[in-house]
Amino acid sequence: MGEKKMWGGRFEGAMDPAMMAFSESIQVDQRLWAVDVRGSQAYAQVLTEAGILSAAENAALQAGLKQVAAEWEAGDFQLRPGDEDIHTANERRLGEIVGEAAGKLHTGRSRNDQVATDLRLWLRGEIDRLHGQLHRLVRVMLAQAETHIHLLMPGFTHLQVAQPIRFSHWLLSHAWPIQRDAARLTQIRSRVNVSPLGSGALAGNPFPIDRNRLGDLLGFDQITYNSVDGVSDRDFVAEFLFCASLSMVHLSQLAEDIIVFASQPYGFVSLDDAYSTGSSLMPQKKNPDSFELVRGKSGRTVGALMGLLTTLKGLPRAYNRDMQEDKEPLFDAVDTWSSALEIASGALLTMNCHGERMAAALHEHMLATDIAEYLVRRGVPFRDAHHVAGEAVKLAESSGQSLASLSPEAWSTLHEACDADIRGVFDMGASVESRDVPGATSLRAVREQLQLLKMRLGGPTAFCV
Amino acid sequence: MGEKKMWGGRFEGAMDPAMMAFSESIQVDQRLWAVDVRGSQAYAQVLTEAGILSAAENAALQAGLKQVAAEWEAGDFQLRPGDEDIHTANERRLGEIVGEAAGKLHTGRSRNDQVATDLRLWLRGEIDRLHGQLHRLVRVMLAQAETHIHLLMPGFTHLQVAQPIRFSHWLLSHAWPIQRDAARLTQIRSRVNVSPLGSGALAGNPFPIDRNRLGDLLGFDQITYNSVDGVSDRDFVAEFLFCASLSMVHLSQLAEDIIVFASQPYGFVSLDDAYSTGSSLMPQKKNPDSFELVRGKSGRTVGALMGLLTTLKGLPRAYNRDMQEDKEPLFDAVDTWSSALEIASGALLTMNCHGERMAAALHEHMLATDIAEYLVRRGVPFRDAHHVAGEAVKLAESSGQSLASLSPEAWSTLHEACDADIRGVFDMGASVESRDVPGATSLRAVREQLQLLKMRLGGPTAFCV
Amino acid sequence: MGEKKMWGGRFEGAMDPAMMAFSESIQVDQRLWAVDVRGSQAYAQVLTEAGILSAAENAALQAGLKQVAAEWEAGDFQLRPGDEDIHTANERRLGEIVGEAAGKLHTGRSRNDQVATDLRLWLRGEIDRLHGQLHRLVRVMLAQAETHIHLLMPGFTHLQVAQPIRFSHWLLSHAWPIQRDAARLTQIRSRVNVSPLGSGALAGNPFPIDRNRLGDLLGFDQITYNSVDGVSDRDFVAEFLFCASLSMVHLSQLAEDIIVFASQPYGFVSLDDAYSTGSSLMPQKKNPDSFELVRGKSGRTVGALMGLLTTLKGLPRAYNRDMQEDKEPLFDAVDTWSSALEIASGALLTMNCHGERMAAALHEHMLATDIAEYLVRRGVPFRDAHHVAGEAVKLAESSGQSLASLSPEAWSTLHEACDADIRGVFDMGASVESRDVPGATSLRAVREQLQLLKMRLGGPTAFCV
Amino acid sequence: MGEKKMWGGRFEGAMDPAMMAFSESIQVDQRLWAVDVRGSQAYAQVLTEAGILSAAENAALQAGLKQVAAEWEAGDFQLRPGDEDIHTANERRLGEIVGEAAGKLHTGRSRNDQVATDLRLWLRGEIDRLHGQLHRLVRVMLAQAETHIHLLMPGFTHLQVAQPIRFSHWLLSHAWPIQRDAARLTQIRSRVNVSPLGSGALAGNPFPIDRNRLGDLLGFDQITYNSVDGVSDRDFVAEFLFCASLSMVHLSQLAEDIIVFASQPYGFVSLDDAYSTGSSLMPQKKNPDSFELVRGKSGRTVGALMGLLTTLKGLPRAYNRDMQEDKEPLFDAVDTWSSALEIASGALLTMNCHGERMAAALHEHMLATDIAEYLVRRGVPFRDAHHVAGEAVKLAESSGQSLASLSPEAWSTLHEACDADIRGVFDMGASVESRDVPGATSLRAVREQLQLLKMRLGGPTAFCV
Repeated sequence: MGEKKMWGGRFEGAMDPAMMAFSESIQVDQRLWAVDVRGSQAYAQVLTEAGILSAAENAALQAGLKQVAAEWEAGDFQLRPGDEDIHTANERRLGEIVGEAAGKLHTGRSRNDQVATDLRLWLRGEIDRLHGQLHRLVRVMLAQAETHIHLLMPGFTHLQVAQPIRFSHWLLSHAWPIQRDAARLTQIRSRVNVSPLGSGALAGNPFPIDRNRLGDLLGFDQITYNSVDGVSDRDFVAEFLFCASLSMVHLSQLAEDIIVFASQPYGFVSLDDAYSTGSSLMPQKKNPDSFELVRGKSGRTVGALMGLLTTLKGLPRAYNRDMQEDKEPLFDAVDTWSSALEIASGALLTMNCHGERMAAALHEHMLATDIAEYLVRRGVPFRDAHHVAGEAVKLAESSGQSLASLSPEAWSTLHEACDADIRGVFDMGASVESRDVPGATSLRAVREQLQLLKMRLGGPTAFCV
Repeated sequence: MGEKKMWGGRFEGAMDPAMMAFSESIQVDQRLWAVDVRGSQAYAQVLTEAGILSAAENAALQAGLKQVAAEWEAGDFQLRPGDEDIHTANERRLGEIVGEAAGKLHTGRSRNDQVATDLRLWLRGEIDRLHGQLHRLVRVMLAQAETHIHLLMPGFTHLQVAQPIRFSHWLLSHAWPIQRDAARLTQIRSRVNVSPLGSGALAGNPFPIDRNRLGDLLGFDQITYNSVDGVSDRDFVAEFLFCASLSMVHLSQLAEDIIVFASQPYGFVSLDDAYSTGSSLMPQKKNPDSFELVRGKSGRTVGALMGLLTTLKGLPRAYNRDMQEDKEPLFDAVDTWSSALEIASGALLTMNCHGERMAAALHEHMLATDIAEYLVRRGVPFRDAHHVAGEAVKLAESSGQSLASLSPEAWSTLHEACDADIRGVFDMGASVESRDVPGATSLRAVREQLQLLKMRLGGPTAFCV
Repeated sequence: MGEKKMWGGRFEGAMDPAMMAFSESIQVDQRLWAVDVRGSQAYAQVLTEAGILSAAENAALQAGLKQVAAEWEAGDFQLRPGDEDIHTANERRLGEIVGEAAGKLHTGRSRNDQVATDLRLWLRGEIDRLHGQLHRLVRVMLAQAETHIHLLMPGFTHLQVAQPIRFSHWLLSHAWPIQRDAARLTQIRSRVNVSPLGSGALAGNPFPIDRNRLGDLLGFDQITYNSVDGVSDRDFVAEFLFCASLSMVHLSQLAEDIIVFASQPYGFVSLDDAYSTGSSLMPQKKNPDSFELVRGKSGRTVGALMGLLTTLKGLPRAYNRDMQEDKEPLFDAVDTWSSALEIASGALLTMNCHGERMAAALHEHMLATDIAEYLVRRGVPFRDAHHVAGEAVKLAESSGQSLASLSPEAWSTLHEACDADIRGVFDMGASVESRDVPGATSLRAVREQLQLLKMRLGGPTAFCV
Repeated sequence: MGEKKMWGGRFEGAMDPAMMAFSESIQVDQRLWAVDVRGSQAYAQVLTEAGILSAAENAALQAGLKQVAAEWEAGDFQLRPGDEDIHTANERRLGEIVGEAAGKLHTGRSRNDQVATDLRLWLRGEIDRLHGQLHRLVRVMLAQAETHIHLLMPGFTHLQVAQPIRFSHWLLSHAWPIQRDAARLTQIRSRVNVSPLGSGALAGNPFPIDRNRLGDLLGFDQITYNSVDGVSDRDFVAEFLFCASLSMVHLSQLAEDIIVFASQPYGFVSLDDAYSTGSSLMPQKKNPDSFELVRGKSGRTVGALMGLLTTLKGLPRAYNRDMQEDKEPLFDAVDTWSSALEIASGALLTMNCHGERMAAALHEHMLATDIAEYLVRRGVPFRDAHHVAGEAVKLAESSGQSLASLSPEAWSTLHEACDADIRGVFDMGASVESRDVPGATSLRAVREQLQLLKMRLGGPTAFCV
């Protein structure tokens, strides 16, 4: 009955076995073993510098903690009944190794500030890893965009063909949200990387330890300044879950586009076998399961965010056991987001693009706006020009002709400003090139866009917006 | 490369290993092993009855499936690479046992209708188990209510003391929501217990199997009548998740009340050691972790519901791989709800009730409404009577007296209808007994309530509202 | 300062004006005016029957309440400062009309039980209206399915063409979920239609009113039996919000299918001008805004559900002011769902179906399963047959031939069981007709399905599953 | 039929009236009138600078737009049928005022980039206002903390008394989350303040306007560089909704603490009449409705966030009409958060603090940790010391004594390191002062904390973490 021992002599009855199972978190939080050891190493150090531990005790603890870490690393760490969480497991094992000195390590420290510290240290590392994965995905998009920079496709609004754009322009429209996700993550990191260690259970550490030194040893940017908030604050978890959720929503939108584009009536793209699956019943099937799973898993992350906000809502200050429910959604969101980024990168990198199918889907009606613009350049107010273009579409449809083959007479009847050169409008490439302001779809503008995205990939400071 | 083999000859490239990990669900869905076997047993039977399998083939398959189940039961089933889900694992193993006949079992069946069937069979069993746990919790409440039926406590609104009520009445106010949860579950069961088997991949089974017979063999109440809907429908999962979420919200409210009542300034109840934990830093602590975890875990279930609704939103009809994300939230919600019910039952059953602390918290101001009612019985309109009672409270406060000790003169100054017998109002027990309509807090009414709840526990049909 | 007057003499300070604005709900809950009046009429009646009001007082109150209702009906009701909610507004106005007797109406009644009663009465009426709208949508689907029962289209899984099905079969796959929504609503109604009136503020009514009689007068099926639960219970709101959310998710899936099918590369359907909008910039556009809005508004209803669950989580028992936040999400969900049903019905009813585009999208690869089934009928185990069909697809692709034009030699090389009659497989209509079990896509099975749906539309009792 | 006119000549059928009501957004988005006018003013200016409008046309448009704004300002703007959104309403009115030139204003502009621009401009202003409100709330907390800096109260964990802390320390533990909210808002602002104007419908503006100049005129920090993303991106709305939700969760936690502390068994604080309400039934009640509403409304904002994420999930790129559903949740979240901040500030500023009730709740058991620390200072390992303190608590309880009155013999029996001076431990003030590291609860540390919070209120740059 390890937990009874740790809580001291006041408890008499044993814990109900079902309650013990309900209460323990070791199966989940053992993932924190490395940062838990690291936090204890730093804590032992500042206890020593404050004169609370002797140099010999510190040396013993450091060696013992190193051994604990080594056992985890090697997969040799043996959990025992009573190891209800990673902190008690590590402390129990440390006691077996170094004896009485282990009992001094907890001086002024509570699991309340310990777990908050562990979680921040762990998440900091994951954020850095995920930041790299977001960058990689953007790089994959850049590469595909550059390779296929000359392909034209229909741009859609309302999933109706709208105006011709470059395929690369469409693809990069998914890169910017990912770049924003990375920027957001950089900012969240600064709120994660704050040290609550020294907050005690809630009232602060009563021993003269140097909290700033402790923060420095653990690589924190700064320390917290209210011990009650220090043990209560899970904002950083919620922020991360939001960031993951929004990014997964971005990936769900990328996935939706690709699933539609890979559907036979479109046929714009097809996925490599490596990212497809077949059917147990239909031999001809090659399904875009990779992106379907990415899309579907967005729900999981949004659910994790919702769950945590629900758990946090209306909680009293300081530690409440409800807060144990922060770890599973966090761990799951990290894993889900990370694997979705990896899969999306791989599937995009190997995706086949079928320019001929894109070209075949370009319908001349998509140039109706260009007709209006032609008129605007001849001084017709846009609203009138828009109306004329609509009439032209209607005339072509009702007379069974293409817009491009309407006679000059038909055009001049539609509007006197229509000259014979209106036929020059019916050129998809010219339409695309005519959109040449920053951010538009002309070759020049897309190349500028590529350049800007590459610059943003350059360094962390560039990622702040 | 098991999955390539199953999909037939069209695939050339191998699946990316990361994609394989991303895609496989066996770690999650192996939990369905028993219902998967059971579904196959029934399917082999109807294939046989339809003349598609011979009696010998059927006998071999039934024996083989029995062996597969026995291996799972004994913990001997060995997963192999390529066992991407429980269906392929069981089919692969069956093939090893019975040879070619295993390849005939999939005739006309797809994993799309197979997984929908498995999930419904599994959930049906869990619903029955959970229904029993809900009943048990209500019974525990009934037992505690009967034991402590004479204890009075302050009833709160806005967490301000309002009117005296029986402790048992408060406790039973938590039993009715749980009873509603059970009633809701009974109704959901009827929508769960419908057989989609025979829907094929989406278009229906092309062999003349008897779908009604198949449904009967598996204990289903009825069959689905649209094969596309049959493989698409996850309403029953969403409904269950809602039912679990609302019930967990109920438990969070019970938990909130108990946590507040167990707080030292209240002290109305205390939890047994078996459902409490201590502190690693503060030796005197005995914390109501059981109910804090119950409260916190409500977020988890709400998150699961939110996640599934997000995943389902905007999905095209028929099977999409996104739907693989239905199982983890479902399994987690079943486990969370089930354990929360068990813990709540145990913690309530062993909870200590401190009537003297409840009595000490009864403040005579809580009888202000009774003063107004006294006047109403003497013909004063309620709105005026309410005003007089408010003035009386103010007078008592400003003069530093108790309401009960205000002089007859003071009362008659407040309102001419106040006689000397107004002092009879200042009796908590009398106040409680005066509320005697059905559903009120008098002894008679509470006993009636107990009786009604017991009747509702009587049988399933009684649980429909 | 109306609210101070109602609360009686204890309050001294005035309410902060910002707080008054924050607190008042009259702009929202005035929608309940009719049920509030109706509840008061019934309450006056039972007070009279219990001897608390005289017949004359009752007559005055009934007439006064009738006038209040008439003023609302005519749009003449004048709100005054201090009318913080519909109950105080109606009571204030009643007092102006009938004088002192109005002050007696609140005898033993609290706004806590009053608002719970009002909300249940109101929602009951809305449920009945929505039930009719759900039925209407199913009827529209039935009509379109019957009209186009001979159209074939590709059935999709993973949005990849899978097997040929009837267009009507696809459309009806969206009718069953709507039918389930209606069934669910019927069951929820029975939990809505329960009378909490007589619960008082929380402890029950202290006057001998007949709660069952009161319930009967208001058309309730039964009464509540715990007064604390009676004023706390908002389960019926949460249940309704879930039902609306799931139904909106169903509509989002219908919308998704139609938006994709209306996209030019598909072109299976097009919406009538009455349910489309154009573009301010692109004259040729005709966008399916009706279904996009339906799809988008699913978020709104899911948000309402999540909001209420968050609000309810961890609330203490009995009334807390937090619960005022139940009405806006409920009203919004009723309006959103109702208008989405109306729009979806209208848009579907007028939708144009383009059978030639559906037919053009039928690719012979969709018959690969039929090849496998052909072999199964010749005794080949399905798994092997599936493999052969996959090889056939690969051979056709690599040799640039269609499957139907592969030579008999090619077929017999693929598998010896392939005879010349395999060419009979390459017939989309025959494939569809071969799927003839209940729920499948053959003409007979679809007609059976239509019949069953019509029966379920027949009466309320038939709607229980 | 204004909308038909604007869409040009292709439409023939009229829109269904129900569809028109379903589709129009003018009741919601008219709130954007000022930024819509401002955007048009800037757009006219750059069209002029690009030579597309003449100086005279520009002058007419600027004057006309000024008049439109003046009409809105004065409440004189008359909506007409066909004014489906704020853009068409303003454009229609502008046309009435200036004639044909109004038709030129839309040159190259789409409602897609127009609405994205409007929403960003509007939200930027609201963010600045909300930032001020967050600061004000922190200032109110600082003021109350300074006023009551000497009050001690029980610090709670698990809502069980834990260790004595300063009331001010508890209060400031709620200030830090609010300060983080303000910091987060500052960062979000930089992602809001980006100009999409010039993105056209999706492909970019085909006229040579200067997008950077346009951005400068509207005070944007930078411009977007992908026109498809420019019209699709609603990340800034989602981010804001998250920020509002997390802050409302913070306020719900503050509210929870205060509601519990204002409950009679605690009695630590009481709210001013200005932020309380009474009961229509119970004359003595004074309820903390202000904080209950704040707590309850957290659900509303969380619901808005979840709703938007659901709406955005799986959307194709570029504009889809689903995105119209961004405005109501945004507007509602701004209003809810803003009013909750105002109410919380007012209620906290006028809140009465009852130091004597706080002091009465300090139980000597809360010093058990101090006993352990006493022993640690005498060289006893913390784990052992913790155990001894637990035994002391148990001894005191079982012998019916207070800890402070245990005899020296009893203490030395418990542990040999216990001297007579252990009685010095039983001093709440000394305990509080012993916790003196940064962030702890000693007077010095709390004053340091106050100083730091004031510095963070100093300027926007200080608010980045």
